[in-house]
Amino acid sequence: MSNSQPRDAFISPRFSQPPTFMRLPHRTDLTGVDVALVGIPFDSGTSYRPGTRLGPREIRSQSSLIRPYNHFQQVAPFDRLNVVDAGDVDASPVSLDIAHAAIDQHVRGVVAAGAMPLAIGGDHSISLPVLRALAGKHGPLGLVQFDAHIDTWDEDFGSKLFHGSSFYYAVTEGLVDPRRFVQVGIRGPLYGPGDFAFHRDRGIAVMDIDEVFRLGLDGVLARIRTVIGAGPVYVTFDIDAVDPAYAPGTGTPEVGGLSSHDAQVLVRGLAGLQIVGGDIVEVSPPFDGPGQITSLLAANLLFELVCVLARGR
Amino acid sequence: MSNSQPRDAFISPRFSQPPTFMRLPHRTDLTGVDVALVGIPFDSGTSYRPGTRLGPREIRSQSSLIRPYNHFQQVAPFDRLNVVDAGDVDASPVSLDIAHAAIDQHVRGVVAAGAMPLAIGGDHSISLPVLRALAGKHGPLGLVQFDAHIDTWDEDFGSKLFHGSSFYYAVTEGLVDPRRFVQVGIRGPLYGPGDFAFHRDRGIAVMDIDEVFRLGLDGVLARIRTVIGAGPVYVTFDIDAVDPAYAPGTGTPEVGGLSSHDAQVLVRGLAGLQIVGGDIVEVSPPFDGPGQITSLLAANLLFELVCVLARGR
Amino acid sequence: MSNSQPRDAFISPRFSQPPTFMRLPHRTDLTGVDVALVGIPFDSGTSYRPGTRLGPREIRSQSSLIRPYNHFQQVAPFDRLNVVDAGDVDASPVSLDIAHAAIDQHVRGVVAAGAMPLAIGGDHSISLPVLRALAGKHGPLGLVQFDAHIDTWDEDFGSKLFHGSSFYYAVTEGLVDPRRFVQVGIRGPLYGPGDFAFHRDRGIAVMDIDEVFRLGLDGVLARIRTVIGAGPVYVTFDIDAVDPAYAPGTGTPEVGGLSSHDAQVLVRGLAGLQIVGGDIVEVSPPFDGPGQITSLLAANLLFELVCVLARGR
Amino acid sequence: MSNSQPRDAFISPRFSQPPTFMRLPHRTDLTGVDVALVGIPFDSGTSYRPGTRLGPREIRSQSSLIRPYNHFQQVAPFDRLNVVDAGDVDASPVSLDIAHAAIDQHVRGVVAAGAMPLAIGGDHSISLPVLRALAGKHGPLGLVQFDAHIDTWDEDFGSKLFHGSSFYYAVTEGLVDPRRFVQVGIRGPLYGPGDFAFHRDRGIAVMDIDEVFRLGLDGVLARIRTVIGAGPVYVTFDIDAVDPAYAPGTGTPEVGGLSSHDAQVLVRGLAGLQIVGGDIVEVSPPFDGPGQITSLLAANLLFELVCVLARGR
Amino acid sequence: MSNSQPRDAFISPRFSQPPTFMRLPHRTDLTGVDVALVGIPFDSGTSYRPGTRLGPREIRSQSSLIRPYNHFQQVAPFDRLNVVDAGDVDASPVSLDIAHAAIDQHVRGVVAAGAMPLAIGGDHSISLPVLRALAGKHGPLGLVQFDAHIDTWDEDFGSKLFHGSSFYYAVTEGLVDPRRFVQVGIRGPLYGPGDFAFHRDRGIAVMDIDEVFRLGLDGVLARIRTVIGAGPVYVTFDIDAVDPAYAPGTGTPEVGGLSSHDAQVLVRGLAGLQIVGGDIVEVSPPFDGPGQITSLLAANLLFELVCVLARGR
Amino acid sequence: MSNSQPRDAFISPRFSQPPTFMRLPHRTDLTGVDVALVGIPFDSGTSYRPGTRLGPREIRSQSSLIRPYNHFQQVAPFDRLNVVDAGDVDASPVSLDIAHAAIDQHVRGVVAAGAMPLAIGGDHSISLPVLRALAGKHGPLGLVQFDAHIDTWDEDFGSKLFHGSSFYYAVTEGLVDPRRFVQVGIRGPLYGPGDFAFHRDRGIAVMDIDEVFRLGLDGVLARIRTVIGAGPVYVTFDIDAVDPAYAPGTGTPEVGGLSSHDAQVLVRGLAGLQIVGGDIVEVSPPFDGPGQITSLLAANLLFELVCVLARGR
Repeated sequence: MSNSQPRDAFISPRFSQPPTFMRLPHRTDLTGVDVALVGIPFDSGTSYRPGTRLGPREIRSQSSLIRPYNHFQQVAPFDRLNVVDAGDVDASPVSLDIAHAAIDQHVRGVVAAGAMPLAIGGDHSISLPVLRALAGKHGPLGLVQFDAHIDTWDEDFGSKLFHGSSFYYAVTEGLVDPRRFVQVGIRGPLYGPGDFAFHRDRGIAVMDIDEVFRLGLDGVLARIRTVIGAGPVYVTFDIDAVDPAYAPGTGTPEVGGLSSHDAQVLVRGLAGLQIVGGDIVEVSPPFDGPGQITSLLAANLLFELVCVLARGR
Repeated sequence: MSNSQPRDAFISPRFSQPPTFMRLPHRTDLTGVDVALVGIPFDSGTSYRPGTRLGPREIRSQSSLIRPYNHFQQVAPFDRLNVVDAGDVDASPVSLDIAHAAIDQHVRGVVAAGAMPLAIGGDHSISLPVLRALAGKHGPLGLVQFDAHIDTWDEDFGSKLFHGSSFYYAVTEGLVDPRRFVQVGIRGPLYGPGDFAFHRDRGIAVMDIDEVFRLGLDGVLARIRTVIGAGPVYVTFDIDAVDPAYAPGTGTPEVGGLSSHDAQVLVRGLAGLQIVGGDIVEVSPPFDGPGQITSLLAANLLFELVCVLARGR
Repeated sequence: MSNSQPRDAFISPRFSQPPTFMRLPHRTDLTGVDVALVGIPFDSGTSYRPGTRLGPREIRSQSSLIRPYNHFQQVAPFDRLNVVDAGDVDASPVSLDIAHAAIDQHVRGVVAAGAMPLAIGGDHSISLPVLRALAGKHGPLGLVQFDAHIDTWDEDFGSKLFHGSSFYYAVTEGLVDPRRFVQVGIRGPLYGPGDFAFHRDRGIAVMDIDEVFRLGLDGVLARIRTVIGAGPVYVTFDIDAVDPAYAPGTGTPEVGGLSSHDAQVLVRGLAGLQIVGGDIVEVSPPFDGPGQITSLLAANLLFELVCVLARGR
Repeated sequence: MSNSQPRDAFISPRFSQPPTFMRLPHRTDLTGVDVALVGIPFDSGTSYRPGTRLGPREIRSQSSLIRPYNHFQQVAPFDRLNVVDAGDVDASPVSLDIAHAAIDQHVRGVVAAGAMPLAIGGDHSISLPVLRALAGKHGPLGLVQFDAHIDTWDEDFGSKLFHGSSFYYAVTEGLVDPRRFVQVGIRGPLYGPGDFAFHRDRGIAVMDIDEVFRLGLDGVLARIRTVIGAGPVYVTFDIDAVDPAYAPGTGTPEVGGLSSHDAQVLVRGLAGLQIVGGDIVEVSPPFDGPGQITSLLAANLLFELVCVLARGR
Repeated sequence: MSNSQPRDAFISPRFSQPPTFMRLPHRTDLTGVDVALVGIPFDSGTSYRPGTRLGPREIRSQSSLIRPYNHFQQVAPFDRLNVVDAGDVDASPVSLDIAHAAIDQHVRGVVAAGAMPLAIGGDHSISLPVLRALAGKHGPLGLVQFDAHIDTWDEDFGSKLFHGSSFYYAVTEGLVDPRRFVQVGIRGPLYGPGDFAFHRDRGIAVMDIDEVFRLGLDGVLARIRTVIGAGPVYVTFDIDAVDPAYAPGTGTPEVGGLSSHDAQVLVRGLAGLQIVGGDIVEVSPPFDGPGQITSLLAANLLFELVCVLARGR
Repeated sequence: MSNSQPRDAFISPRFSQPPTFMRLPHRTDLTGVDVALVGIPFDSGTSYRPGTRLGPREIRSQSSLIRPYNHFQQVAPFDRLNVVDAGDVDASPVSLDIAHAAIDQHVRGVVAAGAMPLAIGGDHSISLPVLRALAGKHGPLGLVQFDAHIDTWDEDFGSKLFHGSSFYYAVTEGLVDPRRFVQVGIRGPLYGPGDFAFHRDRGIAVMDIDEVFRLGLDGVLARIRTVIGAGPVYVTFDIDAVDPAYAPGTGTPEVGGLSSHDAQVLVRGLAGLQIVGGDIVEVSPPFDGPGQITSLLAANLLFELVCVLARGR
């Protein structure tokens, strides 16, 4: 059994003690750590409603309710993996370039220590520096992206980088192998039919929401496994893949999305992939209600991902 | 291409500039306009929670996120139709009679200018004066009503008109042909089994929510097309057709309703009908959460309807 | 026709008059009453977010919207049953023992007067004293529990009783016959695989959420009827059985749950069981949004349960 | 000691039982009653943000916290006066004329029964029918109006009556003696310098907010007593007299107003006047925060007014 | 300079990293610590609205904004005192007796380690076990209580202890010397004139809110110093001493209270007293608005108190 | 009389029509315009809670309530000045440098057209490019800054510019004459006593909040006039100068500030200064409550400033 366990909720009530993720130990020395949860409270790549800089704190807070055994995956992840809350990257809120450099450097440190990073965003732009750090070790990665938006636009506002261009640069910088890249849940109005030209040119697979509903979750998972195949893969979950009813606290919500149960089943179904890192992004607590159900969902999806990793042991 | 396009979000950020619908031009001279979005901020026909007078402003504000191309309908509506935000009807909040007269007169002006009105409510009583104006041009209309409630009660509080009697009067005044009138999504407790006597007497078609789920969306759309057939038709979408999880910001919410994706598919499926006008009503922002997902959904449904119209060109 | 009817909403607007349940008469003399709605505003058995002490008031307030005829069950319950709002149990907020004794005593009074109690919680610990009172009359009861959580843990914080141990004690005290006890909708992370040992030992039936979705609602209802069979049965509905999108206002929300329509169908499907009492619990208004959709759902589920009872007449 | 006392909070917790005002008995037979609290949930006279129809319920709910002894007035009012919650006027939300007639008739009934009415609004238009009922008994009344707005405009939107014209008609109908009419706390932008012409013509006294702060509360109270003198007087308290920091839940808030302590001192200072009725209006709960401090303040001001009345015994 | 400093906000943005108080180190080994901030997330002594169990987390979160130098007290407290966030007491939410015992024992540990405890509540009942622990070392203490309520009632609901009886027991158990006990800011309705009998009998000083405003803050502080004199003193600040405009997030709000600036000046004015411990209590985040200004105020008042302690060095 | 008047609220209800400031005409051609209200929805200079990018829209929306005549300044500003809503600067949210350049250029255009700019922020960093544009015309300016914070820090996060360094650069770039620069309302914890070194070196006048309360508002205004003297002056009002009770919707709130009435009096008292531009900044709607009182206050303060300008005509 790992020596890193959540606090026992029958001794220490769930609402007590400073909120680390699932009330796991907060540790910055990552020696011997298998999985490091890393907050990346950065939202200055956001084109619409801000607030995801407050995501890591709220997701940690809502994670206090999660118990340590996963009944549906039949696994007690903290008995198999040494998982810690590694705190946050200190990322400048006033310069995307400085912040992205800090994220890249920080995640390289996590990787160098032998831990797998699971990032808690922050806006979707943070996936890019995380991918840079991981590709530095693993080479080009497969990518499973759950998202309402393609995020492969290549410019905005006269700048290059924002939360809608992460994967354009991830592909063009060679961090992601486009033939092992699949997008799930795409929907919402677009700029024009040309928005998918990049996908066609590079061979990126897209399952829009209608196709998701048509294939069913098992069909979607089969397609994901076909696209990704063997080799290292990164999982990025933009919470706006889920319908605003289940996830109102986000910056660019799109109606007509996944349910929370769909999202759980999809993450659970990734077991068997060679996951080397992941993130959950775009949770904006100021736009959530008092129940903070979006942060709660994000925390649960992270827990499901940790359990997927644990089943690989 | 139409000369009326939304602002370009890569130049002008989505949250900037006064919020017209989708940041289209605000124009009161409707010469050459195909579709006029008309706000009708009136809620004094409301029998329970008020606030829909604030609906047009919030729906416009949330519409800023919508991009101009519809991937699921495969249409760029503003390239085919000249669509403008025509501002609001100035409707007295303290007299239903004065307000309804103003709405009727205003919409007659829109129609006279050659534009098709899409109204943004307001409570459901506003459909009645809009129908009066449209029937004045087209004669008795078909009617597709998405709603939790039948709205064919014939009295309340000693007055005749309120937001639950619109379609009783629409039928009895001859504005709507009851044999070309179909209600979709009806649910919630009623006053008694006699509530459907009017429907039986007049031949109005009703699909309650259980029938909707039993038929499936394709079956519902087939039934709608059968009932409506050829001839001019009006589409009224009461946001409470959708479940309160997806649309909490409304005055008389009924649990157990449509999902947002259901609503999108149903509106998209109206393509091919001879639509001459429509509305979306009963969005009450004070009862929505900070994410304002109800107004966002309403804005998207309006966009879907505009796209349906564009496909007819 | 019963002489206990809700106020007529066409005379008295829904938002007027002090909010009893559905604006039924508030009566403490229960002579001749068939069904007594009893508020139990107690939340000091709560292990996480509090606030269910405010549930009865808000559920009553939101119930004002409910009309008296149930279209889907085809019944006008107040014509068949004499239903009243019996007010609240006065339960100490600072001592679980004193409060539980008061609840037990109060409900025994209801039962002695010949009325069937339907309790409005409050946290789930209140089911235990209600079951004590009912088992005192009927002997061991069948139990249908809609819930995300098993609530059969046997200790917490050095105390025995809390809202997660109600049914451990209900079984071990002999109030509930475990072979006639079925749990529906169980999900969320657990403490370990041993959490179900009690169920296996005692023969308690569990349908977790994946089994619910696999069986379908008809299959779930068939299984419930098989487990319960003949004999008196109690129905307890923890609102967290429903997904947080539909019921955010609760203390220990679990993502991935039932929809509001699922919940309605499940309650309606209990018709034919020999129900002797029931409750709806765990509604916490401070964590709901301004639309208070959780209280609205709870009020509607109570109405469905009243209609189920009425169909038995 | 009166036989009408609030529930004992050491026996029945404050959050329990259906919320009447201060949990006094709900009684519609007013025989022997000294003071009748009458809810008037009507807001269709509102020109801006609606929601005061929900005021009576929320004010009653928040009043549960109030204990029965007034330390600052040194009086236990329920030992001297028989005070009851008389429920609400059933006032149509869709017709101001029908609603005002119902209010007038209802309050005449209260007066005929020998009770003094204290009304809980509702928008400020409700003061007019209450004054009509009272002037029917007492003749022209003095009037103390705490308010940000003058409410003596004489038209709006083509109608005559709305919540900004109540006192124009109260004066012109002879219900109020303008020389015994004083307004306190007036502020906010106006339509023009002519807005005070009516006051000058009729001899109405006005203390705007700067004069209030200049005179001090004692000075203001002295001036009120001078203007009102002997004879029957009505007290109307528009909650927007208070600054939005203390009373955000209102429809037409004006910054720069009274504090809550100022408001308490001003009401307490009315002792000695021959008060024959009063109201508190313009509390709109949907615009308040989760603490509902505006309703709490309104409930406390009503309690202060009841204590003022009790000191007269 | 102390080795315990808040994180540098020019390196680590304020919203990043797990939120300890002012982002000071979280330490449970208190060797060499001068002041230990101890969260006590317990609210089961609450008679009205709950939620203060969530206070410590939110107060810590809002404290992130506080910079380390106090301009008005002219002190950099962390250069003089070794201050740490000692985490929370693990206090059972379902048994006041078990929880109070845990608090007592925990605080005795803090005191034994040589640190001064500053407690972050939690409801006001927590002051009692803290006083027990401190009086165990120092003997009977002086007490400065800022509060709207006297909290010297001696029973409730058939139990003895709740958040309104803390100081009755603190005096009767001999933990507090009543002649060195002063209450500031008392207001709100009471149960009767006898509520102050205990004060008269024991010689407890009371300044109600009118006296506070009459004396002015300097006068109040002079009176406090006179009552307390020399000897060890405990400071308890119930946030409801402050007006709900400034502190809406509390369980039993009373209108007509202190401003936030008043509160700051009063705490600053305690410099020179021989303070041996203190607390801030009754912050209930679910009843605050999205700005969480109540927690922000509480965090600032704690900082002011730390600075008062630092000036004593 | 100017031809630019707000809509008539007796014809067009306040909540209707797209919300420009006070429902003035939206005009981008500024020929003949005296005062141009310019929204600057930019918040990527924010170091703590974001959201001021949503400020211009909400301030415009709340301004709908303002009537056109100022009773306390005795002026009808739109009869003397041609005031328009000039829309927003399109400022990139993802690059402070690009955004500041756009603001500078845009405001230079306003100035070149002969209009005086009044900016609606946005975070406080926007004052810097506005000052650059104005100093380009007028040379070094006087500056009246109402603020809780000094905003003269010279670095953060490795970048130079953020919302706390605006006036460091305004002085060092020679845009503001430090001897004609006065700060009013400064409070809150600081980084150290050295934070005022810049002020002492440059001769900048500071009145912290205690001095403001000590001098009284008349004294403060006298001091402002002394410091500013003759010559062009810019007025910047950071809404956090006001206490969070009155202005909770801001990013870095500081307790213990001005009241709304104080703020009004201070702005009114600027009449007679040679104002050439101004701004109101740091309103963050997501942190305000449902009443949006912070935006309402900001809108009113802008109106007061417009009236000050009108009195100069």
